[in-house]
This record gives sequence, structure tokens and C-alpha cells, in this order.
Amino acid sequence: MSYRVGIIGATGAVGQDLLALLHGRGFPCADIRLFASARSAGKEMRHGGHTYTVEEAKPEVFEGLDLALFSAGAGISRDLAPEAVRRGCVVVDNSSAFRMDREVPLIVPEINPQAADGHKGIIANPNCSTAITLMGLYPLHLRFKLTRFFAATYQAVSGSGVEGMQELEAQLRAWAGGESSAPNTYPHPIAFNLFPHVDVFLDDGYTKEEHKMANESRKITGIEELEISTTCVRVPVMRAHSVAVNAEFDEPVDVATARAAIEAFPGVELCDDPAANRYPTPLQYAGKVPCGVGRLRRDSAFANGLAFFVVGDQILKGAALNAVQIAEVLHERSVLRVPDGV
Amino acid sequence: MSYRVGIIGATGAVGQDLLALLHGRGFPCADIRLFASARSAGKEMRHGGHTYTVEEAKPEVFEGLDLALFSAGAGISRDLAPEAVRRGCVVVDNSSAFRMDREVPLIVPEINPQAADGHKGIIANPNCSTAITLMGLYPLHLRFKLTRFFAATYQAVSGSGVEGMQELEAQLRAWAGGESSAPNTYPHPIAFNLFPHVDVFLDDGYTKEEHKMANESRKITGIEELEISTTCVRVPVMRAHSVAVNAEFDEPVDVATARAAIEAFPGVELCDDPAANRYPTPLQYAGKVPCGVGRLRRDSAFANGLAFFVVGDQILKGAALNAVQIAEVLHERSVLRVPDGV
Repeated sequence: MSYRVGIIGATGAVGQDLLALLHGRGFPCADIRLFASARSAGKEMRHGGHTYTVEEAKPEVFEGLDLALFSAGAGISRDLAPEAVRRGCVVVDNSSAFRMDREVPLIVPEINPQAADGHKGIIANPNCSTAITLMGLYPLHLRFKLTRFFAATYQAVSGSGVEGMQELEAQLRAWAGGESSAPNTYPHPIAFNLFPHVDVFLDDGYTKEEHKMANESRKITGIEELEISTTCVRVPVMRAHSVAVNAEFDEPVDVATARAAIEAFPGVELCDDPAANRYPTPLQYAGKVPCGVGRLRRDSAFANGLAFFVVGDQILKGAALNAVQIAEVLHERSVLRVPDGV
Repeated sequence: MSYRVGIIGATGAVGQDLLALLHGRGFPCADIRLFASARSAGKEMRHGGHTYTVEEAKPEVFEGLDLALFSAGAGISRDLAPEAVRRGCVVVDNSSAFRMDREVPLIVPEINPQAADGHKGIIANPNCSTAITLMGLYPLHLRFKLTRFFAATYQAVSGSGVEGMQELEAQLRAWAGGESSAPNTYPHPIAFNLFPHVDVFLDDGYTKEEHKMANESRKITGIEELEISTTCVRVPVMRAHSVAVNAEFDEPVDVATARAAIEAFPGVELCDDPAANRYPTPLQYAGKVPCGVGRLRRDSAFANGLAFFVVGDQILKGAALNAVQIAEVLHERSVLRVPDGV
């Protein structure tokens, strides 16, 4: 069985990695087609000896596809994903459009692959900070039963796509040349700076990003009573997100068991030898498949708590890798098709 | 009354700001002398029309001084501060050497100026992250009674002195020129990177910096039962520290009262209008006297909790400014002398 696959938003940072991952991980593709806005149509992209011509994304294109990986923003997903499903094309959507929809599974393949079985054509890929945080938290939950966590993020500019990366670069090059470069993608300079502002602000003072982390964590883990408070911060780092986590558990914790739990879990590695200055850093985890957990310690402000620092590539586990892993799960579980009657 | 004042560690980042602040704030100085290691002796420093020649710091120099502001590391403080006191010179020490000594007051002037009264010659200036975090927390404690907090820091390279700032600059200039510049001050590159490692690691997995934040917070606030867990992270920012805080209180909280509490407290300002993209950022608070508090919101994972983001200049409130403010407190309370019998 092999599939005709489309990438929607192919020219973006995530889109480019989706193409590389489909090739690199050997996903069974009969054909790959790249789609973007009318503005990018006609552009050529090369990968693995192939040259692809970017086509304009529109409803008709899904007629010839089995699977579409969407990464073009929530608006495009809302418009085109239902069109794809109507034409028999399964959608793995990287946007926030459908994540909290009760009919749509929201999946981190190492955590809840079984949620794929009941899909109705659309499967959602979680928010980047959520996926990376859960890669550290979930193995600990399996041993100790997670009840609450606090998290502060250190989010790379890749989370704002190619534009975010270009803006950090432009500002630093301007600084090195004794000039200045005004913010465009962000409301403030990002070079030599950071700000507690990712996505829009909501009425309760949290941002939408912080709400995503809370709501999506509860949905993916299935822990409905999980209490969560996060602060999401953009930092001048290129493409890996870091998260400082304080987690409370129902059962007594010990660090040796926690370390073993991280080591035994797929997709995450223990990077934790402080005496040798070993702990995960974003430079080290940029471009890496596994997330890294370090600074694992008994939390000094919870009776049953663990504190740790987790880092993962935002474009990989935070987006493109997780999306391709979802496609792999759909294939392996023989559910890579739009169910009858949808 | 005016004082003969010495700055120990005058050539460092904090030393330079100490000199500027003594001038700028009009502290009653009869004389200012600058001291550093033998290596820097003879160097000239200018400020406010004066030219100072740096002298070597050694025990004898304290004979002619009323007040010494130390910022040359804990080793120098341990060696020379007792020599100063023995010679009748009061010490305000910016290092960690004496902070947890029961005989030594540890002071943030807006919080516990009265602690100065019982000094025995040495008064300690707190850790930078601690002082800045407490500028946000203490006004809230006065209204709601603080019982526990979690904090994740975003610490500027100025916390490692001139060397830290030079290292970030050198690495970014090398990058802009298509070259690379190896880490020297830090164990990892700091350009485009960050790491959960400030000061040395201790046996419980926390760093010494994280222990300082816990122990010093309890000592300064006088809340002995205060539960604290922090993660201290170095980020590629020049000179202001940021802290994401989740705080739990004994009494019910409301955001309006919390905002009023911050606004009424000296040395801190509310910078909190998300709709206008207003929240404190390190670029904005670099070189500023007050600390800024924003993102103030009811915490979603505490029954009585508040979350906020506080930013302050590390060299000012985190070091030099607080030290000069301590000197001002000693002067105002008429205790700027080594008590009899010490």
C-alpha cells in the first residue's frame, strides 16, 4: 500500500521539513505533490533528486490525493480540510483549527496512537510547546500519575515560520553592521530580547498559546482534572523550544524511577549529567528527532513533585515530525482512509 | 555627614555602575576611591569630570574609608570584608559570601530596610534574580500572604560580568562574519542558545543559583515556611533578567487588588496592557531603575494564585543600584558606621 500525498503550505519552514521527512523516513508515497498559495504557485522545490513544482492549493486538488499534510495556518485548514475529506483525502492538520474539536483526534504518536482509530477524516497535530512538554511529562505520568504542572517556555523564532527566523537574523546582522532593523513579524525587537507573548491575549490574561498548552495537554493525556498554568515566552533562538516544568503527582516520586521512565519512553532521551555540563540546550536539539530531558530533580515545592527541563526541535517534534509520525500511525493501524459515511 | 567610599571590583560591569550611581544619585561622598586586582591597578576610569586611578585592593586601604561597596566575587569578599570591618569600614557586599550568615542583614531596601539596624559591619546585597523576583512578589505578599512560588528565570549575560557580555557579542559578530567563536566564559555557546545552568550544581539537582533564590527569598521576606522551586536559565540577552512566576497565597486573590499593590509599591511599576502589546521586556528595562511587572493574571493551577512576569536590570536592581540603595538606607537610618564592640 502506498499513498498519493500532498503537502499544503509546502514553502513554509514546516512544509520543507515535511517533504524531507516523507523522503527520509521512507513513508510509502506513490506520489508527493506540493501546494501553497497562488503567490507561490510555479515555484520549484528540490528534494532527493526530485524537482517539485508548487501548485496552488484549492478544493479540486484533493480529488487525486489519499493524504494531505496541512501546515498553512488555521484559516486555510478551516477552508480546505473539509474539502479534502469530502473528496476522500485524509487530513493531518498542523494548525489549531480542529485540535479541540471532539470529533477530531489530537495525537502525539508515542502517547495516544489509539486515538487515531476513530478518526473521521481529520487528525490534528498538537501545538509545538504542548507536544514537547508532554514528551517529558507523559513518561513520568505513567509511573506517578500527573495531577498538576507549571511550565515556562523558551520558544524559538521558528514557531513564527520562516519569517520569524529571518527577522532574528536580519536584526542581528543589522546590529553587527552598526545599523538597526525594525520589528515586523513581532511587536518588539527579538534580537537581544524576549517577550511573554506568543499568539493573542485572551480575557483571563493568558495567551491563546498558554490555553492551547492546557487544553491540548488534557485532551492528549486524557487526564481531565489536570491543573495547568503556563507562561509562553519567545526567545532569540532559532528552532528548538525549551520548557522548564514543575510537575505534581498523585503518587510518591523518586528520581531514579523517573530517570528510568524517561529512558524507557520512545522519542525522548535523558540528557542529564550536570557534573559534565550535560543538559538539553536548543542548539544541541535543533534538527534532532528525539526530545531531550535534563535537570531532572525532586521538586522542592511539591510533596510529590519533579522538576525538569525539556528541549525539542520545534519544526520536527513540534510540527513536521509529529505530523509524519501520525501518518505512519494511520498507515500501521490501517486507518489511512476516510471512513465510509463521513 | 559625608563618607569616604571605596568600590572594590571597580573595573567590572557592576563596579562601573556603582561609580555612576554614587554620582548620579547624589550619595554624600567626601571621596571615592576605586580598587581592583593588582592586574588592573594603575588603570584610569573617568566619571562626571573626575579621573580615578584604580588602586590594588588590600587590607590597608580600608584604614581611610567609611564605606566599601564590594563587587569582586565571593573569594575577595571573604578575604577582605573582615579586614575592612576591623578597620572601621562598613561593607555592602554584592557577593554571596555572607548572605546567609545569621549575623549579616540581607536587604532589598524597599522590602526590609529595618534589617540594616542590627548590622555588625557587613550588609549583604542579594542575588540578582532574587531581588528582581521579590520586587514583584513582595507587594503581592503584603496583600495576600505568600506561601509558595515557582519561578523560571531568563537571565542576561551581564550576570557573568563584562566577560559574559563580551562572549555573547563575540559569538554573534563571528556568526555575522561567517565564522565561529568558541565558548570561554560559558560551557556552551550562548548565541542562539540558552541553558538551564547558572552557578554550580548541588547534590539535590538544583543549582547554587536556584538555592540562593530560595534561601535568600525566605531571609529577605522573613517568611520561614515559604516553599520555593526555581529553574535558572541563561539566555542571549544583554543586561536585564526576566522571571516567570507562579505564586500561591494564603488569602483569596483578585487581580485588581494585585495591580493596585504593584502600583503602590516603590521601585516597581506595572507594565501590563496586553491589548497594546505592553508587558516588560529585557530590552525595555535595560538601564531602567524600576523593575516592571506584567502579564499579571489569576493563576489557573492554584486556588489562590497569581502568575506574572517581572523584569529588572541585572546590573542595577540586581546588583549596583540595590547596593547603593543599601548605603542610602544606612545613611538615612544613621547606622553607616561599624558598631562599637565588633
